[in-house]
Amino acid sequence: MSLRVGVVGASGYTGAELLRLLGAHPGVEPVVATSREFAGRDIASVYPNLTLYAGRPYDELDAERLEDLDLVFLAVPHGASMALGARLATAGTRVVDLSADFRLTDPEAYPQWFGAAHSAPEWLGKWAYGLPELHRDEIKGHQAVANPGCYPTAALLALAPLVAEGLIEPDTIVVSAASGVSGAGRGMNAGVHFSHVDANFKAYTPTGHKHTPEIEQELSRMCGADVRITFVPHLVPMPRGLLATCIARLAPGADPARVAAAPAARYATEPFVRVTAAPPETKYTAGSNACHVWATAEERTGRVIAIAAIDNLVKGAAGQAIQNANLMLGLPETLGLTTDGIYP
Amino acid sequence: MSLRVGVVGASGYTGAELLRLLGAHPGVEPVVATSREFAGRDIASVYPNLTLYAGRPYDELDAERLEDLDLVFLAVPHGASMALGARLATAGTRVVDLSADFRLTDPEAYPQWFGAAHSAPEWLGKWAYGLPELHRDEIKGHQAVANPGCYPTAALLALAPLVAEGLIEPDTIVVSAASGVSGAGRGMNAGVHFSHVDANFKAYTPTGHKHTPEIEQELSRMCGADVRITFVPHLVPMPRGLLATCIARLAPGADPARVAAAPAARYATEPFVRVTAAPPETKYTAGSNACHVWATAEERTGRVIAIAAIDNLVKGAAGQAIQNANLMLGLPETLGLTTDGIYP
Amino acid sequence: MSLRVGVVGASGYTGAELLRLLGAHPGVEPVVATSREFAGRDIASVYPNLTLYAGRPYDELDAERLEDLDLVFLAVPHGASMALGARLATAGTRVVDLSADFRLTDPEAYPQWFGAAHSAPEWLGKWAYGLPELHRDEIKGHQAVANPGCYPTAALLALAPLVAEGLIEPDTIVVSAASGVSGAGRGMNAGVHFSHVDANFKAYTPTGHKHTPEIEQELSRMCGADVRITFVPHLVPMPRGLLATCIARLAPGADPARVAAAPAARYATEPFVRVTAAPPETKYTAGSNACHVWATAEERTGRVIAIAAIDNLVKGAAGQAIQNANLMLGLPETLGLTTDGIYP
Amino acid sequence: MSLRVGVVGASGYTGAELLRLLGAHPGVEPVVATSREFAGRDIASVYPNLTLYAGRPYDELDAERLEDLDLVFLAVPHGASMALGARLATAGTRVVDLSADFRLTDPEAYPQWFGAAHSAPEWLGKWAYGLPELHRDEIKGHQAVANPGCYPTAALLALAPLVAEGLIEPDTIVVSAASGVSGAGRGMNAGVHFSHVDANFKAYTPTGHKHTPEIEQELSRMCGADVRITFVPHLVPMPRGLLATCIARLAPGADPARVAAAPAARYATEPFVRVTAAPPETKYTAGSNACHVWATAEERTGRVIAIAAIDNLVKGAAGQAIQNANLMLGLPETLGLTTDGIYP
Repeated sequence: MSLRVGVVGASGYTGAELLRLLGAHPGVEPVVATSREFAGRDIASVYPNLTLYAGRPYDELDAERLEDLDLVFLAVPHGASMALGARLATAGTRVVDLSADFRLTDPEAYPQWFGAAHSAPEWLGKWAYGLPELHRDEIKGHQAVANPGCYPTAALLALAPLVAEGLIEPDTIVVSAASGVSGAGRGMNAGVHFSHVDANFKAYTPTGHKHTPEIEQELSRMCGADVRITFVPHLVPMPRGLLATCIARLAPGADPARVAAAPAARYATEPFVRVTAAPPETKYTAGSNACHVWATAEERTGRVIAIAAIDNLVKGAAGQAIQNANLMLGLPETLGLTTDGIYP
Repeated sequence: MSLRVGVVGASGYTGAELLRLLGAHPGVEPVVATSREFAGRDIASVYPNLTLYAGRPYDELDAERLEDLDLVFLAVPHGASMALGARLATAGTRVVDLSADFRLTDPEAYPQWFGAAHSAPEWLGKWAYGLPELHRDEIKGHQAVANPGCYPTAALLALAPLVAEGLIEPDTIVVSAASGVSGAGRGMNAGVHFSHVDANFKAYTPTGHKHTPEIEQELSRMCGADVRITFVPHLVPMPRGLLATCIARLAPGADPARVAAAPAARYATEPFVRVTAAPPETKYTAGSNACHVWATAEERTGRVIAIAAIDNLVKGAAGQAIQNANLMLGLPETLGLTTDGIYP
Repeated sequence: MSLRVGVVGASGYTGAELLRLLGAHPGVEPVVATSREFAGRDIASVYPNLTLYAGRPYDELDAERLEDLDLVFLAVPHGASMALGARLATAGTRVVDLSADFRLTDPEAYPQWFGAAHSAPEWLGKWAYGLPELHRDEIKGHQAVANPGCYPTAALLALAPLVAEGLIEPDTIVVSAASGVSGAGRGMNAGVHFSHVDANFKAYTPTGHKHTPEIEQELSRMCGADVRITFVPHLVPMPRGLLATCIARLAPGADPARVAAAPAARYATEPFVRVTAAPPETKYTAGSNACHVWATAEERTGRVIAIAAIDNLVKGAAGQAIQNANLMLGLPETLGLTTDGIYP
Repeated sequence: MSLRVGVVGASGYTGAELLRLLGAHPGVEPVVATSREFAGRDIASVYPNLTLYAGRPYDELDAERLEDLDLVFLAVPHGASMALGARLATAGTRVVDLSADFRLTDPEAYPQWFGAAHSAPEWLGKWAYGLPELHRDEIKGHQAVANPGCYPTAALLALAPLVAEGLIEPDTIVVSAASGVSGAGRGMNAGVHFSHVDANFKAYTPTGHKHTPEIEQELSRMCGADVRITFVPHLVPMPRGLLATCIARLAPGADPARVAAAPAARYATEPFVRVTAAPPETKYTAGSNACHVWATAEERTGRVIAIAAIDNLVKGAAGQAIQNANLMLGLPETLGLTTDGIYP
């Protein structure tokens, strides 16, 4: 007797990944899967990999019907979740929003970083930030959860053990990260043309990426002080995978040996985070909810390097959303998420 | 209460894929996983994607122990299965061999195509050929099954419905196929160096590929006559995926409309074969046991084009082996194999 | 004292490749480079690789100005060359058209394969077909040359020596070919999204590709009889490169040893065609005007396999156009085209 | 009447790239091309792209013969240049060494970073460091030049204008860089297997890369003080291309507007360095000697981001070596290097 969930925006990459993962989830059933572009079309004709959905059409969006579900995943672009998210939260429906619309607590961050004011600012700060490894208890008791961005997930999991033990100086943190192309979504533009992306590597939005304030907010919360970081994302010619390479100064007096030890201790019992012996590689996480973390102190320079690898569509989006949903619904946290990654 | 199975050669790509898939299989438990190269080393240190196997070392090969298992998968190179396969078959242990060692019924084919005589020729013809869509009943009753090659799986699934209805002239069949690089295995040679393979496309062994006699044997069996084909495999710069493009003359008097209809009819109830509306793309099968099939008659030329796409490591190897094992063990055929493919 | 040439459509991939190659050509100067989309914009801002063109804007199309040039390259889409090509031909301006608009001699082929009647049918059959290895003398004397398609270039160079010596049965020819993504041009559609193309392989337009009648026309001309082929193109996840794998029956009585010998003899003195010892690989031709050819007889089946590899944008388009232009202008045929391919 | 040069180690990727580029160089002729592995074998059989070398075998190494040449390029692995480089330098033969063997001035750096003492320490500090944009005059007058590493080339070209104007605090510099796979050379190991590298991204040697002391040495020289940096290289699934993303604190009192202006001013007349309007992309430099540079001040954080893109085999190795050779031989600096990059 499965719980009944809905996926709004189920024809984007993130929404389709939710369908893929939910298809293997024994405890919930995606009874609604909406798509503005493909409503009425067979899901398996749009995503021929989704054979479990053959014969089933995409639904039109019907907010009233969503309110009656056990939980709703919102997998729509930034900005598009604001109204529906607020409505579902008001109705008391459990909701996991995969956009940035309810991640930031400061209303002024929206005009600054997203170019428009928030339409439901009264809700900001009332959604839990859905990074279970940091906020598990808060998520369990919450009815509305903002699923973290892909870059923040990796950067925060790499940095959190170091910040928690005071091993690094927060105001020296720089994050140089890189993502596969699916992070840019299914939409077409010259920047995702195969002939352009293949055999190409570049930084993009080096000072203005929308995930910057999210990383800063969570680091500030950990530190109890305002933290500003430099965050430079890069595009890798691969469909999936995300690596965050974080560099900071070792805190004065900190024990360099703790740098490698802290993540190992912090994540010893975490089901999805694995501390690796060598710098992590994105490929080993592909298709799975795993996050691989590694850190070292560079004594020559007095700096620390902490690296995390994830699949941007799973631990960076759909998988983490299901992990959050499991917590919210009182299911085992790993239910439906235990399948190992695909390699090679 | 799972059945106890073993994987011999569990550190090659095919063996590791068996472990990955068996990790999600609710009915069998891989209690033995051998590796000559890595015996004693943690499986998850060799394949960091296999987090379910963390803390568990690869086993040494112990043939006696294997004989007591409910079923053994042999995932070793061509030639290396002969002795062990014969031993297990003699002992009455259920065995699925993923090499070519028991696929061919003609002992003379081994020196001709593999360069060495078969060491257990008395077993040739006594193993079932494990293509369930063609030989399901035979497999169910068999204790020893030869798992098909990746190219034969795709080519035969594309051609079988056409041959069965007499729609094509068998002696005009040519198969131009292409595979991702994992088909060449984990071994190193200049031909698999990233810098060489990337942005490269070529035919290889255009007249001497070891899968040729296997395709011919099965086509001959379908036709009741000796069939010879031209089979030209190509290498695609991608890790997984295999496409077989088969071209043949439409048989005199055959109805061109049956060409598209025959596969649809033949595979209507098959759980893993899907007849697609457009020419299949390998990517939609990645990570899954799906085979996508499509066929058309080209009336201008009186020829037929039939195409099949698979993941070479799943339906072309490990997934099909588990499908066979399910049949041999009396389990539901699709058990552990229902997860949808990963895209993008 | 360079000759003055123009490139119409210089912002598409083929046009930009013409600019790249002409930048290294000591005998001609591209004094006009038009672009409808980018007229007025610095060429090097659209194609930052074209540093030689920094500071120079794309031109508006001005047909009158083109008529005064020593030669004009038309690198516009199919259909778009008809009017301008006819105008320049009428004006007596030397012109190389890289579209299909003047390749076919039969006016009825245009509605059948391109979906619309030809607007200047009086010119069909009056342009030379610009495959220098087959029609060098004709090209030298011509003022209007239709540059071959990429697939026809490779298929015809693979097959010509065999057809010329009567080694294969023309009505049994099938061509299974594959191209990198740049062959689809710079335009955006879901089929060229990196996340879709990467790690994917498929056949496309398996019975209706526009290059089919072109290959058939030239084979028919060689044979003096109407030849129909099956031509199945595939898409490879790589930016450049094209391989044509051609399979046909060995002609009755033909000497199998001639199959490998014929191309070697035929191309011994050709500057751009190299007969290789092993099946050719596209990567070795990247960026160069080379065509690598290989053929073998498969005695088991009585068939012949002939394979050719080219860079679709060079020998398959811009490089061959310059080779034709050199012939038409009385320059050394290899001028500006001697740079070796780039590897890896 | 070309100058006579030799390439030692002409069968590695860098050596083959030297041959490719020298094939198009009008002023020098590679009369010697040695290979230990392939001596006696046709160059074009080892590198079928190098059609200009068809019929010409690789040479055995003959040091005496090299001494008589106008210039020798050493393209052998680190350590292997020490003896031969010292011999040629002693003999007064012009020599460009592409290894690290003569780049560092401090003898103690060799045991520390390369694991073995230098065998000719008397030569350290006597070779010019071959980054023409920084040391053009010194190179012109030198007979022995150490060609920079690929990462140092990019990092130093990105940082030099900022350091020169005192815009950044040197001791805060971190360099997060990424290279295509050809940087690892032609040798085989599990880390360059296509199936492993494709769709994968990772950091490697995050605290111990051999290019670290080289970058530090040159930055220290610019600053007149000991500079230590954190340098984290990454591997990108592409054959060529290198990007260095450099981050540092804006110096107190520095004008943020100078950050973008300084590189533009510094490189205005440089033939190979182009300051781009957007963050550079490696693909636009492929096959060419170009370096694309971009920098910005992030006022929010008081940091500076400076990025440079090159082709690791051209400006990062063979192209820069030829640029140096041109300077040493009194030829125009850009001779043989003007060909535009290949795209897409």
